[in-house]
Order: sequence, then C-alpha cells, then structure tokens
Amino acid sequence: MNAAPIGIFDSGLGGLTVARAIFARLPHDSTVYFGDTARVPYGPKSPATVRRYSLEILHWLLGQKVKAVVVACNTSTAHALDVLREASPVPVIGVIEPGARAAVHETHGGPIGVIGTAGTIASGAYERAIHAVAPGVPVRQAACPLFVPLVEEGWFDHPATRLAAEEYLHPLQVADIDVLVLGCTHYPLLRPLLHRVLGPDVTLIDSGEATAGALAEALSERGLDAPAGREPEHRFAVSDDAQRFQTIGARFIGERMGSTEVVEIGTR
Amino acid sequence: MNAAPIGIFDSGLGGLTVARAIFARLPHDSTVYFGDTARVPYGPKSPATVRRYSLEILHWLLGQKVKAVVVACNTSTAHALDVLREASPVPVIGVIEPGARAAVHETHGGPIGVIGTAGTIASGAYERAIHAVAPGVPVRQAACPLFVPLVEEGWFDHPATRLAAEEYLHPLQVADIDVLVLGCTHYPLLRPLLHRVLGPDVTLIDSGEATAGALAEALSERGLDAPAGREPEHRFAVSDDAQRFQTIGARFIGERMGSTEVVEIGTR
Repeated sequence: MNAAPIGIFDSGLGGLTVARAIFARLPHDSTVYFGDTARVPYGPKSPATVRRYSLEILHWLLGQKVKAVVVACNTSTAHALDVLREASPVPVIGVIEPGARAAVHETHGGPIGVIGTAGTIASGAYERAIHAVAPGVPVRQAACPLFVPLVEEGWFDHPATRLAAEEYLHPLQVADIDVLVLGCTHYPLLRPLLHRVLGPDVTLIDSGEATAGALAEALSERGLDAPAGREPEHRFAVSDDAQRFQTIGARFIGERMGSTEVVEIGTR
Repeated sequence: MNAAPIGIFDSGLGGLTVARAIFARLPHDSTVYFGDTARVPYGPKSPATVRRYSLEILHWLLGQKVKAVVVACNTSTAHALDVLREASPVPVIGVIEPGARAAVHETHGGPIGVIGTAGTIASGAYERAIHAVAPGVPVRQAACPLFVPLVEEGWFDHPATRLAAEEYLHPLQVADIDVLVLGCTHYPLLRPLLHRVLGPDVTLIDSGEATAGALAEALSERGLDAPAGREPEHRFAVSDDAQRFQTIGARFIGERMGSTEVVEIGTR
C-alpha cells in the first residue's frame, strides 16, 4: 500500500485525457499533473530539447514525492522515456508501449494505422513498439499537425476538422487499416469524428486508456496500490497561464478540473 | 552611415515575412534574424513570460552588435515593446504601430478590422494604437488561433483554411469593415485567400511592409543608413530545430533563406 500521489506530465493539456483514464481506472489514487504550458508544443521540437524538458519535469515531480510517473505525452515518451527511466527511482510509464500492445491485440492482421504529431511520427516509436510485440504486422503512419490546434480551439466536430481528417487519413484508408492508434493525447476528443470518417470497420485505440491499465499493473506488481476508501486529491500545475489551462482543461476532464498553480520549471 | 546589421526577431518563422519586407525596402542592409523556435508559439503565453523571452533575445541581438532591433512578432510587440525600448541602447521598432498607422491611412471611416493570435487580440494593442492616431474610428477584432498552424502546414489555399477563414472573419464582414490589419506575421501568406473571402472592397494591411517603412525612417533620421553598394549579409539563428526552420522558412522568403545556426537562449 502506498498513499503517495501518481505524477503525470504532458507538454500541455493533452495529457488530461490520460489523467481522466487514470481517475477512472484507479479511483483511490491521488495525482499531481504537470502541463508544460510555457513550452508547449513539444511536437516540432528536437529530441535533445524534449529530453531536457522532460528531465526537468521529472525532477519537479520527484520533489512532489510521487510513487510513479506517467509520461502522458507521446512526443516525450518517444524521445525521452529511456533517459527518464535511467534517472528515476520510481517506475516511469510511457503512453506508447501500452498503445502499441492494445493495437496488436485488436488487429486482425493489419495494417495498423498510427497518427500523431510530426515529432512522434518521425521518431518511428510506435512502429518499433508494435514490431517489438508483433514483428510481422504492417504499420502505416500519418502525422496530423493540425489536430492539436483544432482540438484546443474546441472544433471537435467542425467541417474544417473533418476536411483535415479526410486529408490526413486518406493514405491510411487506401492502405486498408483495421486499427488506428490515436498516438497523441489530444486525439481522443476527435474520436467521434474520426470514427465517422473511418467507418465502423476500423477500431480506434486510445493510448491513454491502455496506459492507465499498464500503470495499474505496475503499481500492483510493486505493492504500490492506494489504500481503498481514500478520497483522492488531484493537483494541477502548469509552467504558464493557468487560466487558459483551466478553461480548455474543463473540456478534457469536466468537473474534476480543480484549481491550477503556476510553477517555474526551466523557464529561466 | 552605419554598416552594422539590423536585428530582427520573432517567436519563430512568421517574422520572416517582415524580414522579406525589410530586404526589399533596405537592400544594402545586413540582418541577423532570430527565431525562438524552442519556445514558439508566444500567442497563448502570459505577458510576463513573453517579456522575459523578448528581453533574453534583445540581449543576444545586442551581443551581435546590431544597430537597430525589429520586433517582428505581434505578441512580443504587444506585451514587451516598452520594456525592450527601456532596456535597449539602439532603436527598437515594433510591428503594431506601423500597421495601425497604415490602417488609419487606408480606411474611409471604418470599421477597421484586426486579426491576430489570441495573445495579440486579448492585449488590445492594435485597438489602442489605432485610437492613438484616430480616436473616433471603430475597430472590430477577431482572434484566429488556427491560422498559424495552417500556414506552417503550407495549407495556404486549402478548403479547411477557407472554412476557418470564413468562420473567423464572419463577424468582421457583418460589421462591414473596409480595412483588415493582418496582425500576425504569418498571415501575409494567406493574403490571396483572405482577399477572396473578403472581396475587393476590403483593403488588406501587411504590418510587415509598414514596419519596414518605419524602420527605414528611423535609421535615416539617426544617420544609420547602410553604405550604398554594399552586398548585404543575412544571418539566421534559431533556438531549436534549424532544419524545420529552413524547410518552412523557404516558403516564406524563398532563395534568401541561407543556412541557419542554433543558439541557446534562455533554454537552460
């Protein structure tokens, strides 16, 4: 048993979809969420920069006495998971491997489609993670750089978003994918629209849900479960502009969105 | 006469449209351009953060021995122009006042429309600058957060961009604006599309062109013009990912885009 909070971080808001999945899966666990809103987005940034930022956040979360860290950011998982695991005394869970496992579980032979930011797709991390589990399955990837700004604008069901989705997904439809991994934590909010564009024959995988499952297993294996019956506490911190984070964050996790503090991390 | 370069900075790529206008207006002047690609975008960031970043860049440019600094970023001009002017021994020119003056010159009584990022519009800086010159003219503003990612995706003439433009500009069309200030340095690349959406009766103002004119005046008044007949040198520096900057930058300024160096500014 361990009542310490779970640390969760993302470059900004998107990781709140992962937080939501963790709240549902581990209802007695407290959490500390950090969104690096001063330096969002990580997608277009270089691997070295993403690693540096991720390590700074890890050290801040460790200072909050967390019992585990969830990297709720695909770009950061792609570029920094290894260095975070080396640097951390507590378990570090990324979003990519759980999403890849879930995709392999659902596919009937593929191809498996993967969508994400430019950084995640260019890293090839999902393809490697899928092939680590199922070496023969074909994978088709597509970067969708406009999905994050479209989600943050709240255009979940806007005609412009539909046009963007049709254009980005076209090569995957031509390749006849049977599973699509939503390889960016913003994308679950586009799920209904993506489902309409792709039709009922393509299974959508939310990496956040798969990650919450992997986290629950990791805690359980190590005897780190929260004591049952506790009322959990959820803290939110950002590196800049708490107001915008709370306003848009409410779209992600509804009434669970408490007050947000601003902390200075690597911004000087 | 002064052969020192002109410093130009932006949060990223957008300021290259201002650089292009400066190359055209001051063909003998050398320039040093800094794009803060590690920390782009500034639009959603708080005023205090934008001021801190802008001052860090000012000091780097002064270290390059520039004879003047152009703040080729509307968000930075809106939040930081005053503190930059206080801190700088050389003239500092922002993009807002020249754009506002050009709009007042072109309007037949308004309303004058202004579009920009969330940060620029929320600051009210264009409205104040317009009213400083022409107190009675009505101003209608609209934030267009998706235009920057659409431009960086190269979707200058995409149906999704047209839908976004129609939605963002609708309230300005209803208000019957006669002039539209492109209050973000990315937007000149959408000029043909915006012209089609708004029709021939709305004059589009490129703040970058107006700023190049204001810079030429400021240099001339202070005897800082470049010696005629010199072959100018144009340097480009970024805080992250020079490759992406060069690729997308070529869309902005074509063959003038030389090689780009990466410098560390405030990223530690």
